[in-house]
Amino acid sequence: MGQSLTEKILSEHLVDGKLEPGEEIGIEIDQTIAHDLTGTMVWLQFEALDLDEVRVDVAGQHCDHQTYQPDFKVTDDHRFLRSAAGTYGAYFARPGTGILHQVHKENYTTPGTTLLGADSHTPTAGGLGAIGIGTGGLDVATAMGGAPYYIEMPEVVNVRLEGKLPPWTTAKDVILELLRRLSVKGGIDKVFEYTGPGVETLSANERTVISNMGTELGATTSVFPTDERTRDYLARLGREDDYRKLGPDPDAEYDEQIVIDLSDLDPLVACPSMPDNVVPVREVVGTTVDQVIVGSCTNGAYEDLLPITELLSNREVASGTETIVQPGSKQAAEMLSREGRTADLLAAGVNFSEATCGACIGAGHVPASDSVSLRTFNRNFEGRSGNEEDDVYLCSPEVAAVSALSGELVDPRDAAAEFDLDPPGRVLPDSYIGTSEADLIQPDGAIDDELVKGPNFGAVPLKDSLESTVSGPVLLKVPDNITTDHIIPGTKEVSMYRSNVPKLSEYTLSRVDEEFADRAASAGSGFIVAGENYGQGSSREHAALCPMYLGVDGVLAKSFARIHRTNLINFGLLPLVIDDTTYDRLDESDEVTLVEDVVSAVEMGQTELTIRVNDNWEAPVTLHANERERTLLIEGGKLPHTKRRLSS
Amino acid sequence: MGQSLTEKILSEHLVDGKLEPGEEIGIEIDQTIAHDLTGTMVWLQFEALDLDEVRVDVAGQHCDHQTYQPDFKVTDDHRFLRSAAGTYGAYFARPGTGILHQVHKENYTTPGTTLLGADSHTPTAGGLGAIGIGTGGLDVATAMGGAPYYIEMPEVVNVRLEGKLPPWTTAKDVILELLRRLSVKGGIDKVFEYTGPGVETLSANERTVISNMGTELGATTSVFPTDERTRDYLARLGREDDYRKLGPDPDAEYDEQIVIDLSDLDPLVACPSMPDNVVPVREVVGTTVDQVIVGSCTNGAYEDLLPITELLSNREVASGTETIVQPGSKQAAEMLSREGRTADLLAAGVNFSEATCGACIGAGHVPASDSVSLRTFNRNFEGRSGNEEDDVYLCSPEVAAVSALSGELVDPRDAAAEFDLDPPGRVLPDSYIGTSEADLIQPDGAIDDELVKGPNFGAVPLKDSLESTVSGPVLLKVPDNITTDHIIPGTKEVSMYRSNVPKLSEYTLSRVDEEFADRAASAGSGFIVAGENYGQGSSREHAALCPMYLGVDGVLAKSFARIHRTNLINFGLLPLVIDDTTYDRLDESDEVTLVEDVVSAVEMGQTELTIRVNDNWEAPVTLHANERERTLLIEGGKLPHTKRRLSS
Repeated sequence: MGQSLTEKILSEHLVDGKLEPGEEIGIEIDQTIAHDLTGTMVWLQFEALDLDEVRVDVAGQHCDHQTYQPDFKVTDDHRFLRSAAGTYGAYFARPGTGILHQVHKENYTTPGTTLLGADSHTPTAGGLGAIGIGTGGLDVATAMGGAPYYIEMPEVVNVRLEGKLPPWTTAKDVILELLRRLSVKGGIDKVFEYTGPGVETLSANERTVISNMGTELGATTSVFPTDERTRDYLARLGREDDYRKLGPDPDAEYDEQIVIDLSDLDPLVACPSMPDNVVPVREVVGTTVDQVIVGSCTNGAYEDLLPITELLSNREVASGTETIVQPGSKQAAEMLSREGRTADLLAAGVNFSEATCGACIGAGHVPASDSVSLRTFNRNFEGRSGNEEDDVYLCSPEVAAVSALSGELVDPRDAAAEFDLDPPGRVLPDSYIGTSEADLIQPDGAIDDELVKGPNFGAVPLKDSLESTVSGPVLLKVPDNITTDHIIPGTKEVSMYRSNVPKLSEYTLSRVDEEFADRAASAGSGFIVAGENYGQGSSREHAALCPMYLGVDGVLAKSFARIHRTNLINFGLLPLVIDDTTYDRLDESDEVTLVEDVVSAVEMGQTELTIRVNDNWEAPVTLHANERERTLLIEGGKLPHTKRRLSS
Repeated sequence: MGQSLTEKILSEHLVDGKLEPGEEIGIEIDQTIAHDLTGTMVWLQFEALDLDEVRVDVAGQHCDHQTYQPDFKVTDDHRFLRSAAGTYGAYFARPGTGILHQVHKENYTTPGTTLLGADSHTPTAGGLGAIGIGTGGLDVATAMGGAPYYIEMPEVVNVRLEGKLPPWTTAKDVILELLRRLSVKGGIDKVFEYTGPGVETLSANERTVISNMGTELGATTSVFPTDERTRDYLARLGREDDYRKLGPDPDAEYDEQIVIDLSDLDPLVACPSMPDNVVPVREVVGTTVDQVIVGSCTNGAYEDLLPITELLSNREVASGTETIVQPGSKQAAEMLSREGRTADLLAAGVNFSEATCGACIGAGHVPASDSVSLRTFNRNFEGRSGNEEDDVYLCSPEVAAVSALSGELVDPRDAAAEFDLDPPGRVLPDSYIGTSEADLIQPDGAIDDELVKGPNFGAVPLKDSLESTVSGPVLLKVPDNITTDHIIPGTKEVSMYRSNVPKLSEYTLSRVDEEFADRAASAGSGFIVAGENYGQGSSREHAALCPMYLGVDGVLAKSFARIHRTNLINFGLLPLVIDDTTYDRLDESDEVTLVEDVVSAVEMGQTELTIRVNDNWEAPVTLHANERERTLLIEGGKLPHTKRRLSS
């Protein structure tokens, strides 16, 4: 039986386990990345490992989420990150250089490699035939130290692309169509591997649009084969040597197959407030649009910004529609500027921003009350924009551009007639412009050789080892699909405390219940009760670290999002699966006790445990944890565990 | 006796009083401007006047301070301002269009007119022969209603310019030299009128650099004559019809004369943390510079950004020096981009921002702890950058550019040798690019015809009429030179409540004493005791409005900054002058009672009043208030007064 591309790359990196779905595997990591929100904890944890330098081929530290530096604490974080990269041998991308996935793609992503990123959109790399996986920063820190990355081998889904995209329909519509079909839970524990004749109709950048937003399916990663278009793209980046022809065996077998005929797709839009709430644009035309933003790691590349420059050139956006372009990288900005396209956008009434994640995480351009924002981003979770009652729609750059012209949501095929528009080109430049050495600082050009820590840096807390008796109150009960944005908001106000766990913890689950943090801290123990898919969304480890700091012992949920489950274990919290009946029966303030001697049970690999509630009823709970994870749980998480291993 | 240019323009607009220094005059206002921090109160107050539309030739509303829109409250403010401009017949400049003084200069500033602005840098207009005065938003609101603007006729200082600036020395150094000589108090109650053969050696833009930063002298305004260079500038803007030849009579007499030989000037820098802390750059060379920012209303024009583009083209800034360019207007950004200059800056490692006031008011790019920031701005008051312990230096774009290359403060004449640099040109373009109609929305293109108020809008509070007995504790004692930034911080965190007085008031004087607001609100009455020049700096009226809301009755100070004294009276607070002995003797918590029947005393125009302190000692206090102002004080301020007049 032949191998899928996913299996081939993983085989080459396998150091532990077997490539069978559900089996834990350990893989060697070639490259790592982190950004300014996750990076401070990555490096504080790396520091705790007491190593002299990183032990991967390429480690990257980017400053992209808080480029506006709204507070000295943010600028101090950037300062610290530069010093950490310099001290330990990582490259450092200054604020304004661009979004990590875009900058990494331009400079480092290499077919056939493994990339571990402290950001959930790390699968972007899959568009170039790399295996990119998003995880908690702790995994990234230990991977930088040379440790393997452990994960349950996902199922591999063959997404067979046929046909060719019609005019005005884009790669963004491919991934929106998948979200429409499969939902934000449809990809959990799966890799989406793209095959079929449709692949070669997509440019390298279009493939990364799809692999990037595959994250919203809950997928472990997404990957495309490489071909002459990949080689050509790398050549224009000056990196043809990085090219390697990669694809599945002709007789590869997959766990599942999905067929998408590209020719059948329409321009689509994800309505508020979930990326899978997808309908054809034509179903929502006429909705007044107050704000349009083009950019993000999904649609911020040069090729993604070309359409809007062509569509808006010599035209003006609606004066009632604030239109903002946030380029994904300085490279994209420089090229557009070199070609006079930035000037065209400014003339058209566009506010042209520095390169930044910016609005996508609520750091700026927060929508007004009772307004509609249309964005080319990958997420529209409620409140993520910085406005708790937002109405955010997600779409392609083409839909964004024509809607900016119209002042309302419009299908570009209809707008083409109204505004006399031709479908815009997405032509590759002869060669991409490189990034200046001042912005992308290489390890051999490092400025710092010791860590620089501002006054807002808090200590990295360590959990004690697991105790035999675990009990405490139900601190909060939440419904399905709680995101890590709910657990620790990604907004500017909150995330400025990302390097200060005691302070940051005060915001834990505040979006659901403002009193949670106080209640949890007072109790000093206890559980969160949750529905399906608890912890979906971004990979931020603070969503596990802060509950740990507050004393939470575990989460009782119907199911967990993959990255977050791993983060819980990494920080020594028990991820316990409950059934529907138990969920319905549990209430806030119920007293929950694990009946078993927990240390013994975990040590012996017991999966089925029992909770006793209020001393008057019992229910089964399931602990999915392999031997390695059980060790972590017993030792209080990965950091105490790794410290012990390194010192013994 | 001939007239100065100042007197000529004021004569043409005089509706009340005589042009004698110290006499109150009422002048007709031709144009008004406000920005997003001051504008919401301007329009809420204008709404209270119950008029259908503005009664000035041009009223402008800009969104420039908070272009990043870090919070929905800010975006709601912008939404409200657009609706107010549309409803009442003002033009509206969207976020990203640029800084109000720059955009107004490009589009509306007209020789011989009067411009009243709710921003202290309104004197920028003086570079084109207009009288621009910064004041509280309440004055702007009533001026928009057609009311005259009242002010004590200032002394007119003749600043005679001789010679010609040497290479590498700029208009910024002219105003820094004046600050070095005169200090931040040196221009109080004065107009600086520039004359002499040096004037024609300066471009129109260079003149506005000087008139803009004349504000830091405490001056009422600054004004230049017009000449062929003014005509030429206006012609290139497509506004030659606005030109008018203006200058003083040959035999004009002035109250004072200062001579500056431009040929003698060196590149200068204002050291932390006051704009008059000026030394030659050569005295501080070698200081490591962590951040360089070029932009602001002082140095954000196309001509100001040209030098840095020429100096950085084909070079790279120091990788340890984050270098940010914040253009003053979209026009400047578009022109630089059209010419490929933005691309050059990006390639040099510059983070190129949207057009914004941004960092100048602490809204973004806040310096890191223990770092040096070098800026082409006009103010470096302690904490204004958003970091309470900042080290901000002010300089010309040339000094900023070469220091970015060096990574440390360097005199451009020395850098010229090191980097093989030619003095950069400041060449006018053949014609300036206009601003799109989508960005600069004209009254006849208005989108809204009614006010749109978000949930964060608080009521405009009205003060009760003055009572006969005024007494209360000394709530706080502060030293000399307290700025309006000390009274109400201009930072993002605070200013997002600018349309919500109850909430904003909680931050009153928090930079000096975090408990002040609570203490004042509990007391419900009382006084602030201050040294010289109380209330210098920005014109923000909230610095009077919030103490009024908290119940403060008056300020006992050795002297007051002009705009702030007016603001105090406008909001019904007593500005009482005390002598050095009384200042020294007064302490916090002392009980102060005005001995006289205050209403009678004010009505009768009594200047000398008496305070009794702790019932055991007395001291004289002086109330400088003319008849009109006394009426305002008695009626509780300008808004209750104006409302009464309009309803009777």
